[in-house]
Amino acid sequence: MTIDGGEFGVISDLLAPLAADGAFALTDDAALLPELPPGQGWVVTKDAMVAGVHFLPSDPPDMIARKLLRVNLSDLAAMGAVPRGYLLATAWTAETDRDWISRFVDGLARDQARFSVGLFGGDTVSTPGPLTFSLTALGTAARDGLLRRNGALAGDDIYVSGTLGDSALGLRVLRDDLEVEPEHATFLSQRYHLPQPRTTLGPALVGLASAAQDVSDGLLADLGHVARQSGVGAEVHLELLPLSVAAREVLIDHPDLALLPLHGGDDYELVFTASPGRRDSIRAAADASQTPVTRIGRMTGGAGVQALAAGRPLTLKDNGWKHF
Amino acid sequence: MTIDGGEFGVISDLLAPLAADGAFALTDDAALLPELPPGQGWVVTKDAMVAGVHFLPSDPPDMIARKLLRVNLSDLAAMGAVPRGYLLATAWTAETDRDWISRFVDGLARDQARFSVGLFGGDTVSTPGPLTFSLTALGTAARDGLLRRNGALAGDDIYVSGTLGDSALGLRVLRDDLEVEPEHATFLSQRYHLPQPRTTLGPALVGLASAAQDVSDGLLADLGHVARQSGVGAEVHLELLPLSVAAREVLIDHPDLALLPLHGGDDYELVFTASPGRRDSIRAAADASQTPVTRIGRMTGGAGVQALAAGRPLTLKDNGWKHF
Repeated sequence: MTIDGGEFGVISDLLAPLAADGAFALTDDAALLPELPPGQGWVVTKDAMVAGVHFLPSDPPDMIARKLLRVNLSDLAAMGAVPRGYLLATAWTAETDRDWISRFVDGLARDQARFSVGLFGGDTVSTPGPLTFSLTALGTAARDGLLRRNGALAGDDIYVSGTLGDSALGLRVLRDDLEVEPEHATFLSQRYHLPQPRTTLGPALVGLASAAQDVSDGLLADLGHVARQSGVGAEVHLELLPLSVAAREVLIDHPDLALLPLHGGDDYELVFTASPGRRDSIRAAADASQTPVTRIGRMTGGAGVQALAAGRPLTLKDNGWKHF
Repeated sequence: MTIDGGEFGVISDLLAPLAADGAFALTDDAALLPELPPGQGWVVTKDAMVAGVHFLPSDPPDMIARKLLRVNLSDLAAMGAVPRGYLLATAWTAETDRDWISRFVDGLARDQARFSVGLFGGDTVSTPGPLTFSLTALGTAARDGLLRRNGALAGDDIYVSGTLGDSALGLRVLRDDLEVEPEHATFLSQRYHLPQPRTTLGPALVGLASAAQDVSDGLLADLGHVARQSGVGAEVHLELLPLSVAAREVLIDHPDLALLPLHGGDDYELVFTASPGRRDSIRAAADASQTPVTRIGRMTGGAGVQALAAGRPLTLKDNGWKHF
């Protein structure tokens, strides 16, 4: 751990207030994670973001910070883990001034409160390249209760949380590739800037879902991981995908984007599978976590993911989502 | 966790063999850390490295990987923690080809075996900027036995492991700023490329050292952290600093570099303090861990770090070490 700020002596002042219990106010070389009750374990994940690749350099600093944290919390949610804290590495450029960092830290502080997490350490360096961040998220879960990708069975229902495609549309709006009503532009951009990691739903699915994964690269690509790891196939119905009001309005005017909810990325929703016998329990878990959940298809005895429209197979050139 | 490789579909093949127990062969969104015996806790730290800032772009890929891992293990050692695993984020450039990555992974594999650690996850992204890496190291320690920076008392002895200044000299050699005998050039460059984290000594100092810290920014700067956190001062003697044979030879020819062992960086040795009553125990711990340890001064009732030469105070313009 090295939080000393380099050319910005202010960083330790800005970051130290974010320190979690066990992080010694960021004064030492490393932090000690809290003790867990018997049967609980630490769940760890790490994602990186680069300006111009994973976010727009013009994005508000607090939104970049919050998205960085949230995409990692989404990974924890997909495993059924409850978020507890994080470590952060930041590579600032020559243009990164105190005000920028201060707004970045404000974003972290806001989401620390929102998700009950604290900072356990990290590093601040400078780079001649683009702004670059990485974050290691730490969560806890029952050691025998983790959601995995490899447990789906043929015949299981497939569910997705929230709505799909908003973020991919929002990115097009932010890049001036798509013109939409101002109110929809605001909603869709917000969905791109500020994913809603399903941190309450994920842990509520432990013992119910047979497999889970977060949707970051697009529904077909990510459901593909579940199918492959589970050794089964999947069928999803285009017309059953949950869409926001804004996305519906845009798709009416832009039928060429009709398939975007299948492969647009950055949704950070959960896609998960469960036995049909669990439908009532899944519904109850969704209600209890106040997270909309929609059934969109079922796992099959085949292989790969098949999208259907009006019951007929769709062919897609590219199931994956390439970052811009 | 996102290890899918992007443009290099080979990365999952290369990285998956490095996966630790609990990392599910890197197939899932996150990993589960192993269960610990009662009283043990997880210790976490994170450091980042940028090409041209923390390493030379021409450095051998396996050496970059090993240094990245080792500088983090050095932080764990400074806390008295035993290394167990790590998470890794890599940002490759357009020039990073499969061969480069393969050599980078070879370096990781070699040091995983050397230090008994495994890969718990991470992320691979691409960047239009310089090669950038961050690594989160995970270690374990007795929850009540962590070495901290804040425990030094006035009158405590000050010790340092290994030798100082080699890495700073090695960097000058690698940058053609310093001409030395070939055998010394090899040794000093090696010390720059491949720090020796004191992973055995650190845990052996638990219960003996009153404070500890690793020397990454230079002895005076890092001992300064210990002094400040402990609320005391420190005095170290230039002529007592441990020097390698190669460093001695160079300093004879280059008296202008005589102070480099005080403020040269990237040593990754441990500087620690202990009560004079512990001298025999410290000696035994050093012997048992086969790590040379040298007493270089004592903590004082004052403030700050004072370097002495022939018993007289030295004045230094800059105690810190600026990366090139």
